Amino acid sequence: MAERLPLLRPRGGEIGPHADGWGVAFYEGRAARIFKEPIPASQSRCLAFIVIGHIRKANPSHIGRTSANTHPFVRELGGRAWVFAHNGKLPGIKSDTRFALHRFRPMGETDSEHAFCFLLNRIERSVRTTPFQPAQLASELAVPVAMLSELGELNFLLSDGLHLVAFSNLKLQALHRRCQEQGCDQSVMLLATTPLTDESWSSLDMRRLYVFAGGEDVATLTPPKLSC
Amino acid sequence: MAERLPLLRPRGGEIGPHADGWGVAFYEGRAARIFKEPIPASQSRCLAFIVIGHIRKANPSHIGRTSANTHPFVRELGGRAWVFAHNGKLPGIKSDTRFALHRFRPMGETDSEHAFCFLLNRIERSVRTTPFQPAQLASELAVPVAMLSELGELNFLLSDGLHLVAFSNLKLQALHRRCQEQGCDQSVMLLATTPLTDESWSSLDMRRLYVFAGGEDVATLTPPKLSC
Repeated sequence: MAERLPLLRPRGGEIGPHADGWGVAFYEGRAARIFKEPIPASQSRCLAFIVIGHIRKANPSHIGRTSANTHPFVRELGGRAWVFAHNGKLPGIKSDTRFALHRFRPMGETDSEHAFCFLLNRIERSVRTTPFQPAQLASELAVPVAMLSELGELNFLLSDGLHLVAFSNLKLQALHRRCQEQGCDQSVMLLATTPLTDESWSSLDMRRLYVFAGGEDVATLTPPKLSC
Repeated sequence: MAERLPLLRPRGGEIGPHADGWGVAFYEGRAARIFKEPIPASQSRCLAFIVIGHIRKANPSHIGRTSANTHPFVRELGGRAWVFAHNGKLPGIKSDTRFALHRFRPMGETDSEHAFCFLLNRIERSVRTTPFQPAQLASELAVPVAMLSELGELNFLLSDGLHLVAFSNLKLQALHRRCQEQGCDQSVMLLATTPLTDESWSSLDMRRLYVFAGGEDVATLTPPKLSC
């Protein structure tokens, strides 16, 4: 079908009036790959934004290379997109009834997407159309994160578009940069499993939940120890 | 941040073992733009798939050119991605309590995304992790589609990844192609508001709900007339 897409293009502003955006969805099994653009989105802007990037090593290796198994994962909750990326293994999560899912369900087969759906299922009753305050977000996540952390390796980034939540019981490195870009003060927090540059990255505390916003640390909390 | 993404790339298989996929999420307000690939996904395949493409003319024009307002829209329900694209205006949908939303909420400001969320809210109680049969899918959608259709212009495509649902109270053209591609019989149904090629497209019946699968018409149904 891809060769038919050029048929759409001239209608998007050249020979037709639909010049305000275009989008295409490719289905692969139960997941969809979405490419969409509010064209022209070419104006350079001076605004805060969050990027979650992820590169994947399948583990176990039979969990296939499909779009549905590729991070980051995304779900809408309270009219916001929530995005999640994870490194680590969470053995038993799919069979353990404490992690049973309801409203949010995986489209792929990874432990990671199951963990993401579990977190959203746990916080959904508290979510309103107004976003969480940072401390409330940390507090809502504390117990479900502690449960996941006791299950296995948990190194994740989670965002609601305003906040970036980071947690690790393995290792997580951070670099705080301040700079001027296009006349604006920029505060940027880079997070990665291992340093991405030669600068002086620092380790985040293990088993501590961090909430970042606007490149700053706006809430932290140590999830409780749970009795098994 | 975009200029920092190349830092990730060599770790995805060249200098690191994470060769099974990569993904990036860009937040724009409350919506996320996701680009992800199960690399290498280069093998050409011989399988059925569904593509929903859309080009947008903002209407009214003050509903901005943002990713959140760009079709197609996507939500997970029952562990499947549901995708929706719409042409038309549905005046009053946001203020009419019959179309009030609960579980699924828009991330942008369009009537269209509101209509999509409304459809999902209406069918969610019937959705299981096993997909609908075509006739059941049509039957579940009949009343909510009738409600939307009485509100204004409704020309939409909806998919759960297995089925493509089409409805129009304006105009919708279809072209059924059979061909051989890479040794496989292909049955392809092309749907568009106006014909995309010089071939003999035919009009779909107005105000009739069509369910397609594998390029074939597998269920049709005329939604009820509702008393106002």
